[in-house]
Amino acid sequence: MNMLHNIEQLERVESQITQKGLTVWFTGLSGAGKTTICQAVYNKLIEQSLKVEHLDGDLVRQTLTKGLGFSRVDREENIRRIGFVAHLLTRNDVIVLVSAISPYRSARQEVRQQIGAFVEVFVNAPLSVCEQRDVKGLYQRARNGEIQRFTGIDDPYESPLNPEVTCSTAEETIEQSVTKVIQAITIANFPAPSADNLD
Amino acid sequence: MNMLHNIEQLERVESQITQKGLTVWFTGLSGAGKTTICQAVYNKLIEQSLKVEHLDGDLVRQTLTKGLGFSRVDREENIRRIGFVAHLLTRNDVIVLVSAISPYRSARQEVRQQIGAFVEVFVNAPLSVCEQRDVKGLYQRARNGEIQRFTGIDDPYESPLNPEVTCSTAEETIEQSVTKVIQAITIANFPAPSADNLD
Repeated sequence: MNMLHNIEQLERVESQITQKGLTVWFTGLSGAGKTTICQAVYNKLIEQSLKVEHLDGDLVRQTLTKGLGFSRVDREENIRRIGFVAHLLTRNDVIVLVSAISPYRSARQEVRQQIGAFVEVFVNAPLSVCEQRDVKGLYQRARNGEIQRFTGIDDPYESPLNPEVTCSTAEETIEQSVTKVIQAITIANFPAPSADNLD
Repeated sequence: MNMLHNIEQLERVESQITQKGLTVWFTGLSGAGKTTICQAVYNKLIEQSLKVEHLDGDLVRQTLTKGLGFSRVDREENIRRIGFVAHLLTRNDVIVLVSAISPYRSARQEVRQQIGAFVEVFVNAPLSVCEQRDVKGLYQRARNGEIQRFTGIDDPYESPLNPEVTCSTAEETIEQSVTKVIQAITIANFPAPSADNLD
């Protein structure tokens, strides 16, 4: 293999061939900290020369899911479409980080089954904390009646029953949350070598 | 690198690390032969253990571009959205085959610029030939006025001015068309080694 010239290239090749695709799906209320944790995890993985994409719910509404609203049907279509793209990337060995409120359990279950290699991260902060943070001023607007169907206010959020990771962002630091997620990715993506591989 | 056990694995690794992402965009009238050529190219690439995805215009209208119609705005959004996904895959080293009428030159130009690694394949057959084939019975329905805004009948098709490949499907066999496309992919994706690499 005379294309392998140097250590750097070797390392890149090594991390890429051991990398398998995986979707890490961050769900939680607006303001719970999904995007923040996701970005930090993204940076950690990029540092390791891994192939990573971040699909952020707010951003993809400008492209992938443009035109969809916040009815139950539209929210489900939103999740389904993000799931479709996450699946395409995952089966091509990319680690996909999705941050989206994704309030309905059944829709999350549907994408989990479709994708297969799936880690659900529940970014959990009490509504009162999210509302106090109100990073985007949306809770205020929802309370004023300027926004309808706002998750947690007048639209339901169905907590995961059995998520692979829970980040309790009112009680732990971002670093603690990130560490948990990276550990879960490491377990899912790089399983301990079996006896077969120890030659 | 004790993970490289056998020749098969070596070959897989070799083809994957030399593989770069590329979008091959098949444009042309309905019935020109886009999907047929695309499928055959897909099979050839898969045989070579390459990472390939096929985004077919008709199929993605059930998922990715669901709800979009055939107005100019919706057709442009359709192309833009397929382009968005093709871009994500391409930058993660996947070869993406897109088959979609994509009638507007400006929309194709937009995705070409966004994606960068882009090969445009003009699947060219005269309207009369496509209409005679009428594989899906759509031309008949368009002529009867049951379908409006049908490309080639009452909606424009803007031929590529400078496509990388033209497949004249009324004059050449599928095999000939496929060979042209594969050659273009080979040139775009595996450039001849520079002197640096000849050690």
